[in-house]
Amino acid sequence: AFDGIRDELLADPVIAVQPATGQTWMKRVLDYNVPFGKLNRGMAVADTLAVLRGVEDANALSKSDLKDAHVLGWCIELLQAFFLVADDIMDDSVTRRGQPCWFRVEDVGMVAINDGILLESAIYRLLKNHFAKHRRYADMLEVFHEVTFQTATGQMLDLITAPIGKVDLSKYTMETYTNIVVYKTAFYTFYLPVACGMLLGGVRSTKAYDTAKEICVAMGEYFQVQDDFLDCYGAPEVIGKIGTDIGDNKCGWLVCKALLKANDAQREVIAKNYGKPHDSVAEAAVKAVYNEMDLKSEFEAYENKSYEMLRSMIDTQKDLPVGIFDELLAKIFKRSK
Amino acid sequence: AFDGIRDELLADPVIAVQPATGQTWMKRVLDYNVPFGKLNRGMAVADTLAVLRGVEDANALSKSDLKDAHVLGWCIELLQAFFLVADDIMDDSVTRRGQPCWFRVEDVGMVAINDGILLESAIYRLLKNHFAKHRRYADMLEVFHEVTFQTATGQMLDLITAPIGKVDLSKYTMETYTNIVVYKTAFYTFYLPVACGMLLGGVRSTKAYDTAKEICVAMGEYFQVQDDFLDCYGAPEVIGKIGTDIGDNKCGWLVCKALLKANDAQREVIAKNYGKPHDSVAEAAVKAVYNEMDLKSEFEAYENKSYEMLRSMIDTQKDLPVGIFDELLAKIFKRSK
Ligand SMILES: [Mg+2]
Ligand SMILES: [Mg+2]
Ligand SMILES: [Mg+2]
Ligand SMILES: [Mg+2]
Ligand SMILES: [Mg+2]
Ligand SMILES: [Mg+2]
Repeated sequence: AFDGIRDELLADPVIAVQPATGQTWMKRVLDYNVPFGKLNRGMAVADTLAVLRGVEDANALSKSDLKDAHVLGWCIELLQAFFLVADDIMDDSVTRRGQPCWFRVEDVGMVAINDGILLESAIYRLLKNHFAKHRRYADMLEVFHEVTFQTATGQMLDLITAPIGKVDLSKYTMETYTNIVVYKTAFYTFYLPVACGMLLGGVRSTKAYDTAKEICVAMGEYFQVQDDFLDCYGAPEVIGKIGTDIGDNKCGWLVCKALLKANDAQREVIAKNYGKPHDSVAEAAVKAVYNEMDLKSEFEAYENKSYEMLRSMIDTQKDLPVGIFDELLAKIFKRSK
Repeated sequence: AFDGIRDELLADPVIAVQPATGQTWMKRVLDYNVPFGKLNRGMAVADTLAVLRGVEDANALSKSDLKDAHVLGWCIELLQAFFLVADDIMDDSVTRRGQPCWFRVEDVGMVAINDGILLESAIYRLLKNHFAKHRRYADMLEVFHEVTFQTATGQMLDLITAPIGKVDLSKYTMETYTNIVVYKTAFYTFYLPVACGMLLGGVRSTKAYDTAKEICVAMGEYFQVQDDFLDCYGAPEVIGKIGTDIGDNKCGWLVCKALLKANDAQREVIAKNYGKPHDSVAEAAVKAVYNEMDLKSEFEAYENKSYEMLRSMIDTQKDLPVGIFDELLAKIFKRSK
């Protein structure tokens, strides 16, 4: 399904006039980095539009609606690919989606930085090709710009809070945590696809977009807390990776919660063992403290409280069909991967 | 003059709600990377607009025109800052504008990649703040998108043609060279400021933009050939840096020209000595071949031919006032820095 988008981008006048080596490189960048995600974000555009059109599901959309949602969905996937390529360099990561991170591929290296810029540029080529005459074209451009800025701001907070190799537990507060995850994850993961669906569906009320933002931000926070929980307590064979947040010195939900509850002895164990990469003894010591505190139950309580809060936010608003958020919430509630 | 723009960006709702550490970081990113360039590109917006308005010079513009040109000028400087931050990492450079490259500053490192994204995002915040109601708003967004894509494409060609540490002279042809410099330099250095001035000046004809593009691309090519010439033959105290293109394995105008003219012995000297970083003996050997071939005269001939070609392109078109391009050309013809 990505092939059509890929070919459209390779046929772009800016690329098609380049020497063969340049065209081939662009193809590799796109094929390696874009199509292999879970595509949840991309698909949520069509789901949102289906609810707004009052049809059963995305498959029941008109051909033209489906096409539009498809293009915007891939634009979101391109935005994510752009951020992931850069994130993996900055986090010094090894694998992504079951393959080596792009910058680790032999002849790529730091050229990956520029490849990220090409991925981002591709978004605006697609938007221009397909929506230049759409009455909401400027709004589409603006929502991608805004979400890019928000995500980069969240990345900044994440990077300066927990620099690689420097552990400072005093920075790991719930306030900082919430700020980081809302900005680095929630806007692009939840708000962007819903907003894209709303723009296609002809929603005009500013209040409706504000409401969507409020609910999506809360949902994104919950989603990231789950991600942090699964990093430690999920089954590696289910989540598809072995969690490394403790070793990687991440400002995650579990450590923030633990520091809130810790007695002096527990705090010392965390201080001594957190942020030691590839040290399974240190990692086990931190996990033992988490277990002592029964953070699993804390998480379950959080999960139920979040669900109720989200339900009430969804049910009390009158700006948008409840179905838009129902589907999103159903997909993530008590997820195990 | 940048202070107002900097403060506007720091007051942006996305930044102003962040913890103090985040706001301080953003301020550092802006202050370190944006204001210290030559600002030629930014200033060309006002110069173009002044010609279109028929006034003496930029200072004679109305307050509101001057403000608009000022904002767009800084947007171009932000775009350049974004590309330079990334370029310095990819080229493994040491200094930029007389200070260490941003990624070399102690606590920055690879976080610079994300800082580049913040610089780019800042462009679209300014455009939204100042031009959301402008009738050419969508065109402004599109020209920044397109030029970003073109520049990243030029960077891609540059990077894959001469990867650090791998010398392959067969790739250094004049065709490749021209392609690289047009894409990586000409569009953002010449076309973007002229197009911004035209958008503010109310120019609507597509043909006029095409004409501007054609002339600006030719001018950008000439400008980059000069840059390559000065890297080898310019006075370091005048150009403000010591040229490193030979050691850095750059696909530059001189080496392309030399390879076209070289006999077997000369070709071998180049092959043996090109692309050896920090090796002044090797560099001197290559320069000796350049002198043997009298590339200085070749360059002078090229310079005069380019000038005549540009003059004729400027004088024969009837889409735009000649003055727009006269000023640009006068600024760069026979420049020594
Ligand atoms: Mg990461
Ligand atoms: Mg990260
Ligand atoms: Mg995680
Ligand atoms: Mg460079
Ligand atoms: Mg470079
Ligand atoms: Mg140079």
